Amino acid sequence: MINADRLLSDLRKLRSIGAQGPGVVRPAFSATDMEARRWLKARYEEAGLEATIDGVGNVLGRSRQPGKALLVGSHSDTQPTGGWLDGALGVIYALEVVRALAADAATRQLPVDAVSFQDEESRFVGCLGSRSLVGGLTPEMEQGAVDRDGKTLADALREAGLADAPRLRLARERYLGFVEAHIEQGPNLEDTGRRIGVVTDIVGLRSIRFVFRGQQNHAGTTMMARRRDAATALYELAHRINQEFPKAAAERSVWTMGRLRVEPNATSIVPGYADLDLQFRDASSAPLDAFEKIVERLVAEMNARGGVRIEATPTRAPIPPTRMDAGLQQHIEAAAERHAPGLWQRMPSGAFHDAGIISASIPSAMLFIPSIGGISHDFAEDSRDEDIVLGCQVLADAVASSLAAANGRPAA
Amino acid sequence: MINADRLLSDLRKLRSIGAQGPGVVRPAFSATDMEARRWLKARYEEAGLEATIDGVGNVLGRSRQPGKALLVGSHSDTQPTGGWLDGALGVIYALEVVRALAADAATRQLPVDAVSFQDEESRFVGCLGSRSLVGGLTPEMEQGAVDRDGKTLADALREAGLADAPRLRLARERYLGFVEAHIEQGPNLEDTGRRIGVVTDIVGLRSIRFVFRGQQNHAGTTMMARRRDAATALYELAHRINQEFPKAAAERSVWTMGRLRVEPNATSIVPGYADLDLQFRDASSAPLDAFEKIVERLVAEMNARGGVRIEATPTRAPIPPTRMDAGLQQHIEAAAERHAPGLWQRMPSGAFHDAGIISASIPSAMLFIPSIGGISHDFAEDSRDEDIVLGCQVLADAVASSLAAANGRPAA
Repeated sequence: MINADRLLSDLRKLRSIGAQGPGVVRPAFSATDMEARRWLKARYEEAGLEATIDGVGNVLGRSRQPGKALLVGSHSDTQPTGGWLDGALGVIYALEVVRALAADAATRQLPVDAVSFQDEESRFVGCLGSRSLVGGLTPEMEQGAVDRDGKTLADALREAGLADAPRLRLARERYLGFVEAHIEQGPNLEDTGRRIGVVTDIVGLRSIRFVFRGQQNHAGTTMMARRRDAATALYELAHRINQEFPKAAAERSVWTMGRLRVEPNATSIVPGYADLDLQFRDASSAPLDAFEKIVERLVAEMNARGGVRIEATPTRAPIPPTRMDAGLQQHIEAAAERHAPGLWQRMPSGAFHDAGIISASIPSAMLFIPSIGGISHDFAEDSRDEDIVLGCQVLADAVASSLAAANGRPAA
Repeated sequence: MINADRLLSDLRKLRSIGAQGPGVVRPAFSATDMEARRWLKARYEEAGLEATIDGVGNVLGRSRQPGKALLVGSHSDTQPTGGWLDGALGVIYALEVVRALAADAATRQLPVDAVSFQDEESRFVGCLGSRSLVGGLTPEMEQGAVDRDGKTLADALREAGLADAPRLRLARERYLGFVEAHIEQGPNLEDTGRRIGVVTDIVGLRSIRFVFRGQQNHAGTTMMARRRDAATALYELAHRINQEFPKAAAERSVWTMGRLRVEPNATSIVPGYADLDLQFRDASSAPLDAFEKIVERLVAEMNARGGVRIEATPTRAPIPPTRMDAGLQQHIEAAAERHAPGLWQRMPSGAFHDAGIISASIPSAMLFIPSIGGISHDFAEDSRDEDIVLGCQVLADAVASSLAAANGRPAA
């Protein structure tokens, strides 16, 4: 059994490092982030793990037990103005699972490693720490990496005292797999009254930037027929995407056009330039391919008309949809059914997570607990204490039963 | 006959006050603006006029000749980064017309007053000077008036040394009317190969601000059906306006949605708030009324669906369409046909001008010369020397023939 008081107390302790009101400001490599990582390393050591902070800031606590291990954890860095649970929940869950299993004679031999990845929240490179761990952080990614204030990753590493620390690589043969717990960051569990989500897939994501080049003009003297209005083309393309995508969408497909720019953005001037980001996600590639085809067709059609010239280019490397490991899912489902019978569900993750990176190397799985109001990446982010405690117990049981099954010992 | 060299030389002299590269920076009440006004007052005096700079910065030069007078002129303030001709052309034309008529025995008795209005370009209040002259500048307008750096009109008046200067009022009984010459600020004359435009109407203008209130959410975890995406509603409304307005538009109707804001304007966040300005213009009220009805219907239809809440409110007092005086137009047409046979046309003004304010008090008319490439409110604004000279000669003849007809003397 996990210790609920110890779990909640450590979550609140971590919350206090970088707290601002109800929220937390602990972006990757900041003083508060590094303080939290040193604090966590000390907790790992207290829990009997062999702990390291590596050259990109990952905190890894290795079990001294023999046999196939499970890696458990998440990330302790936050958004620039972040919520208190986000990655922190999964990080403290891992610590508590290690302690709970070690306190029980039936599970104390099970090898559980705990981890807090660095910069999941993209201050420099999204999922920097997990990428580095699986060998997916390229020199090109590092060279181009600057935060929104223009600071380079190299400078941040130096200031955090990490420039000369060795970088860890995941020893694939050591692991049975990776399990990450996280708040849902959406309203689906709350809406359906469920308390645990077992993640089936992490959705894939693609994004396209549209650039509209027209002709800036006086809004009083330029007749409609003569205009090449960049904003008019933007409105048309965006609205037609919103009309066409539902025809090709799967149940969980989402798409968003939430960032745009119009120049000069003045009431009395026909805009000569605009740009717009389109981002779309699904748990399988087929709808994403179909969306790309629709975009291609609409842009070609509008460009064929003349007037405003539209260019469409991918803005980032696409993230392919990732399937979570079926075996690990079954252990989470069994544990969920034991502690919250009928109150759990399978679901894709609409947000991206370190598990999406780690799954390329070792079997991975995720567990969600409900977010109050579906709110995340906001100071108001929160979950109910009873859901926090339940999630940790389900995780502990799933970790124990997976390891016991793999290592040929009975489950706790 | 006008003196072309003197005209061009004075235009270039005025251009040099506040010149920046090919453009001019002479916003209302700035040091360069006030220097230009003092320079102009001295030119008025040299030309035999009784000259004053009034309490809002209008420069008025009154003829000493008896009889019904014509007021001729425009504005010498510029946009923050303005072109060299804009209002300056009409101001120097008026000076040259006064000098040319005074130099000819046949016209020297004709009373012509010259004027340069203040702040046509809306640093504080659009058409501040002409509004003040006709008694249309209210205390409310003045109290709320700040420039985009937050300076108040009262401070600007004090710094310009105008705080205690009396404000002039237009003596309606003195005037036969007002004539303003201006660059077209559009491409229509150039497109049709015409050299003079005789303005029939100044188009009316209305504007509406739409505010879209939805719910900000995570772009990965919030399903489409649950979203209240403010930007999606904006794209739909804007595109449907662009589809519906042509059905109600008159030949010269124009509409623009060139300024908008989306919050938080991030690629991965469903926007919770957006706003958008719609501005529409026509030479008659019927299409403007029809546009308002369309907007009302579309907003009601979208609001009835639920989801994003749209509010539509007028953002400024509507400017009614203004008809130019038929008699004065005939004199301009006759002069244009004399000096540029077949190369002039009647046309509405798509941009607003001081003549739109003055016409509420006395009969008013306008004459346009071509803008190269239709460019205006830009350092690149320009017109051909021969068009500049032609426009001034047409204006001089039209002024002389109007005054001669009204005062019972033969035309020049």
